[in-house]
Amino acid sequence: MNFVARALNLSISAAERLRERNILKRAFVKHDFFPDIVEALRLDRKFGFYEEGTVVIKTRTDEFVVRGFPKIKRALTLKPTLKRHFGNRMIAVEEKMNGYNVRIIRAGDSIYAITRRGLICPYTTEKARLEIPLDFFDEYPEFMLCCEAIGRASPYVQSYTYDIPGLEFYLFDIRNRRTNEPIGVEEREEIADRYEIKMVDILLKTNPEKVEDIKTVIEELNSRGREGVVFKDIEMKIDPMKYTTSLSNCYDLNYAFRFFAEYARDFMISRIVREAFQSFEFQNGKREFEERCFRLGKSILKPLIESIQDVKMGKKIVEASELYFYNREVLELFKMHLKLLGVDFRMKVIDEDDEKIKVLLERVMRSTTDRIRKILNGNPWR
Amino acid sequence: MNFVARALNLSISAAERLRERNILKRAFVKHDFFPDIVEALRLDRKFGFYEEGTVVIKTRTDEFVVRGFPKIKRALTLKPTLKRHFGNRMIAVEEKMNGYNVRIIRAGDSIYAITRRGLICPYTTEKARLEIPLDFFDEYPEFMLCCEAIGRASPYVQSYTYDIPGLEFYLFDIRNRRTNEPIGVEEREEIADRYEIKMVDILLKTNPEKVEDIKTVIEELNSRGREGVVFKDIEMKIDPMKYTTSLSNCYDLNYAFRFFAEYARDFMISRIVREAFQSFEFQNGKREFEERCFRLGKSILKPLIESIQDVKMGKKIVEASELYFYNREVLELFKMHLKLLGVDFRMKVIDEDDEKIKVLLERVMRSTTDRIRKILNGNPWR
Repeated sequence: MNFVARALNLSISAAERLRERNILKRAFVKHDFFPDIVEALRLDRKFGFYEEGTVVIKTRTDEFVVRGFPKIKRALTLKPTLKRHFGNRMIAVEEKMNGYNVRIIRAGDSIYAITRRGLICPYTTEKARLEIPLDFFDEYPEFMLCCEAIGRASPYVQSYTYDIPGLEFYLFDIRNRRTNEPIGVEEREEIADRYEIKMVDILLKTNPEKVEDIKTVIEELNSRGREGVVFKDIEMKIDPMKYTTSLSNCYDLNYAFRFFAEYARDFMISRIVREAFQSFEFQNGKREFEERCFRLGKSILKPLIESIQDVKMGKKIVEASELYFYNREVLELFKMHLKLLGVDFRMKVIDEDDEKIKVLLERVMRSTTDRIRKILNGNPWR
Repeated sequence: MNFVARALNLSISAAERLRERNILKRAFVKHDFFPDIVEALRLDRKFGFYEEGTVVIKTRTDEFVVRGFPKIKRALTLKPTLKRHFGNRMIAVEEKMNGYNVRIIRAGDSIYAITRRGLICPYTTEKARLEIPLDFFDEYPEFMLCCEAIGRASPYVQSYTYDIPGLEFYLFDIRNRRTNEPIGVEEREEIADRYEIKMVDILLKTNPEKVEDIKTVIEELNSRGREGVVFKDIEMKIDPMKYTTSLSNCYDLNYAFRFFAEYARDFMISRIVREAFQSFEFQNGKREFEERCFRLGKSILKPLIESIQDVKMGKKIVEASELYFYNREVLELFKMHLKLLGVDFRMKVIDEDDEKIKVLLERVMRSTTDRIRKILNGNPWR
């Protein structure tokens, strides 16, 4: 615990207490694939000014903190929220892509990928080592690359909208891993360009009063089935703010209602409330309103009924994805990682050649399955 | 506290503890309109086998308990739930009306109406004294009449479906107020008939396997905009079970999303889940499914947007109803009663003649109003 206390600037007894209160948890499964890391612990909740997902890493020669990715506040209306938040500063309207948040760092000699909650993920790390240029960290050893991991071969969040069969990393922030201080938008563009790191699209640079221009961008994104935008102060002196499309709200609902017993009620209601504020602000006639009602209703009812039908047919409710591994050891390690996460899963190799192992991963949603089965068996509801 | 301890069969210290833990609360506002009642306390939570809403009443000459109305379990599918619950017993399929649950009793010389949570309501009592024959209690002094109070002049739940301008009482159970034991369906029918007490409709008497017949009844109810049914063992030896129509689910959602910050997330999600199970069991083609999606979406989105629009116009979100009183004292007493309930309200006399005082009651939904106002003022969401 001494290295945690030193890295977080706490007394040893304060660090011990974090552990006892179960705020400080294991961040990885020790393995040769993680040769540089001796120990790693993560904060499972916000603590002081340390974000949830903050990791403390001890390597053979070093110990350091990797700050959690900060929560980004959400605008429910563009007007007057943007103006109120950013004042007169120039902002970048950046595409918010729908994948999972990954911080990529170097520890010792290798690259590591850390998920939102602060776990060093072997699957993501394997892909990041192939995709991300190590020499970036020669120039900027203290920085982390904040990327969205996107594609069909994603173990956590699939997105079919981008037509990415594998898993790719789209950079959206570069931050000092110790202070969490970000670099400016234009400096990031320059670095991404120089190191040939894929970056999320910047759709517009404008000022916060140009709400009509911003609406046009969002409507266009929505029509392409995209998730939403993040507004960023060009200089990154002010916190970013996000805004999602109607499609994204419905997509989330579709997902949450398919696994309704696994998901928090708040998750569902907040998407519905967002949809209402958007409909209010983008108010565009009776026809569009009715389409929105239908879309919302369908994104709730359809997945629920599908889950009921699956259980009726004797199936378990699962979330399935096809993953690939370059290395069988990483595959075995990833199984241990899922156990560390507490995921209830089934895994099956479906194809294998010299280069890759293709695997079907099914996360079993036991609560939803059990709840539906009970009802179908004739048990009353409460 | 001694009378509570005696009535509930507790030690005095156990009764004191109920009070300290805030489970035992005041059940009424002392007033000449309640001449027989010296004291009345209610259970705000289930305690032992005493239901939430159980009341203990002390009159000048007596002290007794009035049991809370029991929670009725819900069937999410008709098949196999009914069969499983009722076995081979004959059941009555009774209309479940949409009003508020009232237990009507006699204490001393007068009639009293108690709401679900165990409050003696002056408004409801005034109406019950005019509608319910006192001589019923000469014959059955220990019984309570469990009724649904329905109509537009309802301070708690309005229902416009029944075309009842005032407030009427529909009997659905007669129970021993001390033991909560109900009398059989046919004995109740006989009593209602003899004392000319309005009773909820019994739509069918059948056995639990006749699911198709029951479905027909429910579809017919739904097409008339009615709420649902309660299934009852004719002999009332087995607990009843309820089932609601799609329209009722949507009505509830409409209500809950209009006042979304006041309502529990669970309330909303459970209606949605019911709707899915019904759609699954009544599965009737693509067209009906799409209509159901639209109906569901609209019953969520429309009230939310209306609330946003109201706040945008500078209004407060209120639930309004028109009530009438025969007696100004009851009006004043009812205001005190609403304060006891913790309701945030405004009240205005809108018409008055020799017979009646007409009043507009508006319950102010402060949380919803404040939440929306903040967002419209440009505050971010979390």
